[in-house]
Amino acid sequence: MSKGVTPKSENYSKWYTDVITKAELADYGPVKGTMVIRPYGYQLWEKLKDTLDKEFKKTGHINAYFPLFIPKSFLAKESEHVEGFAKECAIVTHSRLTHNEDKTDLIPDPESKLEEEIIVRPTSETVIWSMYRKWINSYRDLPILINQWANVVRWEMRTRLFLRTSEFLWQEGHTAHQTAKEAEEETLKILNIYESVVQNTLGIPVICGKKTEAEKFAGADDTYCIEAMMGDKRALQAGTSHYLGQNFAKAFDVKFQDIDNTEKYVYATSWGVSTRLLGALIMVHGDDKGLRLPPNIAPIQIVFVPIFKTEEDLLKIQNYLNQTMNYCKDNNITYYFDNRQKLSPGYKFNEWEMKGVPIRIEVGVRDMEKQNITLVRRDNSIKMIDNITLLTSKINDTLQDIQNNLFNNALDFQKQNTFQTHSYDEFKQLINKGAFIECGWDGDAQTEENIKNETNATIRCIPFTQSTQELQCIYTSKPAKFNVIFAKAY
Amino acid sequence: MSKGVTPKSENYSKWYTDVITKAELADYGPVKGTMVIRPYGYQLWEKLKDTLDKEFKKTGHINAYFPLFIPKSFLAKESEHVEGFAKECAIVTHSRLTHNEDKTDLIPDPESKLEEEIIVRPTSETVIWSMYRKWINSYRDLPILINQWANVVRWEMRTRLFLRTSEFLWQEGHTAHQTAKEAEEETLKILNIYESVVQNTLGIPVICGKKTEAEKFAGADDTYCIEAMMGDKRALQAGTSHYLGQNFAKAFDVKFQDIDNTEKYVYATSWGVSTRLLGALIMVHGDDKGLRLPPNIAPIQIVFVPIFKTEEDLLKIQNYLNQTMNYCKDNNITYYFDNRQKLSPGYKFNEWEMKGVPIRIEVGVRDMEKQNITLVRRDNSIKMIDNITLLTSKINDTLQDIQNNLFNNALDFQKQNTFQTHSYDEFKQLINKGAFIECGWDGDAQTEENIKNETNATIRCIPFTQSTQELQCIYTSKPAKFNVIFAKAY
Repeated sequence: MSKGVTPKSENYSKWYTDVITKAELADYGPVKGTMVIRPYGYQLWEKLKDTLDKEFKKTGHINAYFPLFIPKSFLAKESEHVEGFAKECAIVTHSRLTHNEDKTDLIPDPESKLEEEIIVRPTSETVIWSMYRKWINSYRDLPILINQWANVVRWEMRTRLFLRTSEFLWQEGHTAHQTAKEAEEETLKILNIYESVVQNTLGIPVICGKKTEAEKFAGADDTYCIEAMMGDKRALQAGTSHYLGQNFAKAFDVKFQDIDNTEKYVYATSWGVSTRLLGALIMVHGDDKGLRLPPNIAPIQIVFVPIFKTEEDLLKIQNYLNQTMNYCKDNNITYYFDNRQKLSPGYKFNEWEMKGVPIRIEVGVRDMEKQNITLVRRDNSIKMIDNITLLTSKINDTLQDIQNNLFNNALDFQKQNTFQTHSYDEFKQLINKGAFIECGWDGDAQTEENIKNETNATIRCIPFTQSTQELQCIYTSKPAKFNVIFAKAY
Repeated sequence: MSKGVTPKSENYSKWYTDVITKAELADYGPVKGTMVIRPYGYQLWEKLKDTLDKEFKKTGHINAYFPLFIPKSFLAKESEHVEGFAKECAIVTHSRLTHNEDKTDLIPDPESKLEEEIIVRPTSETVIWSMYRKWINSYRDLPILINQWANVVRWEMRTRLFLRTSEFLWQEGHTAHQTAKEAEEETLKILNIYESVVQNTLGIPVICGKKTEAEKFAGADDTYCIEAMMGDKRALQAGTSHYLGQNFAKAFDVKFQDIDNTEKYVYATSWGVSTRLLGALIMVHGDDKGLRLPPNIAPIQIVFVPIFKTEEDLLKIQNYLNQTMNYCKDNNITYYFDNRQKLSPGYKFNEWEMKGVPIRIEVGVRDMEKQNITLVRRDNSIKMIDNITLLTSKINDTLQDIQNNLFNNALDFQKQNTFQTHSYDEFKQLINKGAFIECGWDGDAQTEENIKNETNATIRCIPFTQSTQELQCIYTSKPAKFNVIFAKAY
């Protein structure tokens, strides 16, 4: 812990992994591509989960749980869906292990071979729509507003903790509606929740928009997304909300008797965010000392580090800090009093900086004599030494200020690295350095693909705010259909 | 919904499934052996989960998440463990689907065959101990008190919703300690939490004790359990807490440098409860009208059913009930105002009885005139008609009384059906009718097996409270080593 991380500027990818390892957020599992979320990382996920869950419930959603296992045949039902997921899935073929002939090893028992192979869910549309078929008969059964917190699996060999692992945790909402209009509204209502939670809790500024045909979810009519800029100026898709039209209803034959007595196919949405957001959290706010956590997501918001030589001094300091700790309790601020022996204050400072705790409060014997405490902000390293009662009373405001400051820093960074250009040459230069580029696109999938092949940049989204007047396509110079954001992406 | 369930007395097993289906707690998934937990059932799980999670956290535990996938070789590391789990597991052998030759079907791509097969976790001891090996070096790293909320898979072909499904949800705690004593204390501390939550929240009386060698967890030194009596007088293992000794530490070579500078193997525990508890909840409290939920677990504690003909009357009733609903809000009582049109009050009564809502409050125009409401208890069907202000003020006490009453009913039932006997003939008769039998056992595994083969009864536990003085073994008539509980079990 005392040793630092690889500097960001030297090797961004190594810096990222170092921070995760040293802050004890996650670790590699024994099977290639899998991840262990360690307690400190899991606390972040729990806090994010609770925040989202409350928002979902406030807007009428309810949780349920659907099976991990999907019959192979289901994946083939929605034709675009299979193309999207068949290439990267875990396939269960046997249900029992047995000893091999010479009893030196365990092998799948040939007699336990399954008649139909089973897929470990990469996402749950198919299994959920097979159930909705049973549950939906009449318009009275609609809407169904179900969310699920679950693990899903998509085969990955090039692991990156939180960003790309075979198994990850997420929530997936799956709703069924009477009308297209209602389903479309639902899609955007959820996008709004994602935007507000990611910005207000994680302090990550996002751009909201729509995906192009090439980038949308396999099986969706429209995919909406929130996109964020990471510290290396690459984009990360932070959440998606899909309007599925009647695609899954048709694939699974889910019809309802409408109020006018006619039979209709149901309209659908699906939407999700995952533990990937923790990867974004690290990349957006982290620095060369480690994590920097916005107070709204920090498991520990304040750490107290007593500076003491004797047990007696330690007790005095603890007593002295009573008023500050009581303030924390009264204001629902989570804190930790680090009274570990045999570790130097310097070691502790480094450790809590690595773990991104927003505020550190130091107290030594001399501070007590002067009725002072020292408060150090993790976001900007500013140190305040002042009267204990005075500084204590400012803690809530300081936490709020840290939350805002981290968000604003990230927003400034995003704005400073977002460029508008009409020149494809400049586009290529900027993309190579790392940037978001806002420019015109003629709406042609071929143009999009050419740009991707030539620069590795993709259209991250078509932002909701459009001003395409007199804009030309960056590639073909034809009149632009859309104003879009290009970037290299995770 | 309007139709009832199969009477308990007619067919207990059908009654059980009917209640689950009609109360919309769960449904069968498309893959044989899998289960869908529907929103109403999942709300029960969420409430139970929150209650347990708080208790775990209060006692210093913290959550983390370990991978779903376990290398096949891990299962073979702890020799007893493999025997316990190899016979019933889901084995992943391929990572990609492809089209067959004539493109009529999808098949596992032969080129994606895995070098080493992967097991979907039946429990996580092995994967967790492979990580603890990395994380534990010194006594300073101990104790580790980690819990995980997760899905696990044990192959099952004879599905029973909540009780026996291939995949189920559970929590599994895995702790590592410096000394045997500390680990043993942990095992019992957790058993205590299980006992108190199952009794106080679910209202299910349990018997605490230790498993015999034959019945303990594969890989444990000692298994402790809580056992409950279901409505058909069979036993259900409601939770287990295992003292693992150094078995997993040795299998995964997890040593630590102790304070005296010697290297030692770590001591371990593991413990879990699952969605199976919801099966117990249904079986212990349900009746021929459906579920009966103890208020502490009920997602909806009070349902208001207005009896109205016109929209105007409905509004008046809603206004009239304001004081009662405000009382609920102020007392954190969850309620639902059932203002659905076109459904008769009788239909609604049946539906909410089926769903086990503890209190129903009915109000019609005449009740309003008399300043009355009608309160009906689900536990004992008692109906109270009285002044609205008076009855409202009694709601909290009534809920508490329902909670106690359901627990006491179940405890009486358990006691009435628990017998002490010295005669093996009587034992066989009683076991056949359904009963818990408290009797002497000579401690011999062969005796235990003979009784199991002859009667299908197993030793559910060796209760903590022992009085074996002058007791003889029910089977061999030798002096009894233990006083034990026999029963047929789920």
